[in-house]
Amino acid sequence: MSPWKAAEPGDRLEAVDTPALVLDLDAFERNLQRMADSLKGRQVRLRPHAKCHKTPEIALRQIALGAVGICCQKVSEAAVFVAAGVGDVLVTNQVMGATKLRRLMELARRARMGVLVDHPLQVQALAAAARAHSVTLDVYVEVDVGAQRCGVAPGAEAAQLARQVAASPPLRFAGLQCYHGPAQHLRTPQERALAIGNAVEQVRLSREAIEGCAIAVERITGAGTGTFWHERDSGVYNELQAGSYVFMDRDYGDNQHGDGDIVFEHALFVRTTVMSRSTAERAVVDAGLKASSVDSGLPTVWKRPELRYAKAADEHGVIMTPDAAALSLGDALLLVPGHCDPTVNLYDELVCLRGDRVEALWPIAARGALL
Amino acid sequence: MSPWKAAEPGDRLEAVDTPALVLDLDAFERNLQRMADSLKGRQVRLRPHAKCHKTPEIALRQIALGAVGICCQKVSEAAVFVAAGVGDVLVTNQVMGATKLRRLMELARRARMGVLVDHPLQVQALAAAARAHSVTLDVYVEVDVGAQRCGVAPGAEAAQLARQVAASPPLRFAGLQCYHGPAQHLRTPQERALAIGNAVEQVRLSREAIEGCAIAVERITGAGTGTFWHERDSGVYNELQAGSYVFMDRDYGDNQHGDGDIVFEHALFVRTTVMSRSTAERAVVDAGLKASSVDSGLPTVWKRPELRYAKAADEHGVIMTPDAAALSLGDALLLVPGHCDPTVNLYDELVCLRGDRVEALWPIAARGALL
Repeated sequence: MSPWKAAEPGDRLEAVDTPALVLDLDAFERNLQRMADSLKGRQVRLRPHAKCHKTPEIALRQIALGAVGICCQKVSEAAVFVAAGVGDVLVTNQVMGATKLRRLMELARRARMGVLVDHPLQVQALAAAARAHSVTLDVYVEVDVGAQRCGVAPGAEAAQLARQVAASPPLRFAGLQCYHGPAQHLRTPQERALAIGNAVEQVRLSREAIEGCAIAVERITGAGTGTFWHERDSGVYNELQAGSYVFMDRDYGDNQHGDGDIVFEHALFVRTTVMSRSTAERAVVDAGLKASSVDSGLPTVWKRPELRYAKAADEHGVIMTPDAAALSLGDALLLVPGHCDPTVNLYDELVCLRGDRVEALWPIAARGALL
Repeated sequence: MSPWKAAEPGDRLEAVDTPALVLDLDAFERNLQRMADSLKGRQVRLRPHAKCHKTPEIALRQIALGAVGICCQKVSEAAVFVAAGVGDVLVTNQVMGATKLRRLMELARRARMGVLVDHPLQVQALAAAARAHSVTLDVYVEVDVGAQRCGVAPGAEAAQLARQVAASPPLRFAGLQCYHGPAQHLRTPQERALAIGNAVEQVRLSREAIEGCAIAVERITGAGTGTFWHERDSGVYNELQAGSYVFMDRDYGDNQHGDGDIVFEHALFVRTTVMSRSTAERAVVDAGLKASSVDSGLPTVWKRPELRYAKAADEHGVIMTPDAAALSLGDALLLVPGHCDPTVNLYDELVCLRGDRVEALWPIAARGALL
């Protein structure tokens, strides 16, 4: 860890050391409210994905605004949120290995825990562990509705695994995980609508196959920030897992939108400083790929369209500038990260700004929780 | 942070939880020794870059084998190593801003500190801070020898900045930083030799211009794991900054080599587990882009050429398999990360293996030290 923090509450923005991960609280709160409003009066619940923010302060605010709980991607991540007081966590992943199973069961003593399966051996192992620890567990069958990652085939294969879960007390068959990741970043609204339309058909097919075995499908969960209004309106999904909406990032910002789409504001930025300005066309900033993850492309420079972040090395970012006057040594910029989730995972705290004043530092308590 | 560690000393490899960053100590020690041997009896010193490992246990071993000190990329990173007992650190970067300058000066009270400049304003600010704190500081002029990042132009411009440093006590003009980053991963030995040959000409030109002002150029520092034997034999460089040699990664492993090249072993791996195996052609492992940085491309699967790591999401890695028998649910694999530096920066500790037994956990103490 850095031996120092980038800022203290009360500091002005210009005193925040760089690079730092800053959160615009006003934009963030509008994003939270916009999502809550979009589900008002509907039978669809929000279970936002916490892998995006890894920050208990944010999960608790989401729950205060109506979220039923959170999703996590890892058992260790879930443990951080349960310790912070979150009482309902779905680990949207298959959990393998005796150590992880034991820890999941210990969490299930303290919170309502859910987990995914896509193989009979996982059901057997979960059931044995749940019996050994005398806990119950919500088990969801993951169905591949187009992502080509985890998940069983829709229809008969999903029904077969659901029957196994339902016949394996103390496991409780809770429903289906049907997340279509690649659909989130299809650029046109037509492409995204089509992809989710196809996913919904696969979900319906799977639900009918399971109900045909006289097994109720209580929950159908999925969706992300790029498509969630389609799942909301599908008539089949009843839990939404969107996470990035709290922050937004350049990759989501590149999506085009149509009528009815619900769009959020950029609230998360990397503050950075020009540390080298040795040519008129090039400025080098102190935020490279250890400060802003480049897995989904480079960051952009906030409200400075004439500046192009062109290249990232470990701790250097090269910004192309139209002329020598465009930027000076020591100038600060805000970058919009290419992908919020892995960028957040690089920092130990969020520097939360109200206007140009630091209001709080929020620990990113589950950063690095990989197990 | 994860609430749990991936392993404890004494554990067998098969008990190491996943994903975990594991170091093969035998291969690592051979790499350290190979580098030390390559400089024996020469007038060229090693000052390895610690941004790669961020681990005091490793820096102290490098120094015990003859390194004169280390390089860091950030002041906060340097602070971690000084606190661990490293007495000579070169921050291979421009340092901007009053807070960072104050901290750099405080470090200069406890260790020999060096820093780079490529602009007159940086020299002024460093000199004022050094005077205010009554410390001396080694200042290197960074010259752009082909990297097109930071650095002044070779020759007259370098000499002009060197004169300013030499005339700004208590700053001490220590020499030139001449690192050619892009040359490190040119794939053929001919391309790399040509790029460093050109860099050496620019270094020579710059040194002559400075010596023409009656200023001695004590140190010329640069080089990386892909080219350092060229700088070693150049007759101009006398300090080498290679860092990745301790670990190696897929990107360095993709370089082709000729006679006289010095090649290192893969010593750093991400241990991962197959958590989903729902089709014959696809296995999904628990190490995605938060476990192995993909900025320089995807990881490969160690000693399993028939398996192809094809896609990384936050916490999922998709591996294409030739048939259903190639991998089973729960199988463990070792991945060779695409790029070691940002991958190490994702973990809190190195799980150090001697054979198939965990010998130690080394804290990656400067992980996340961005300031």
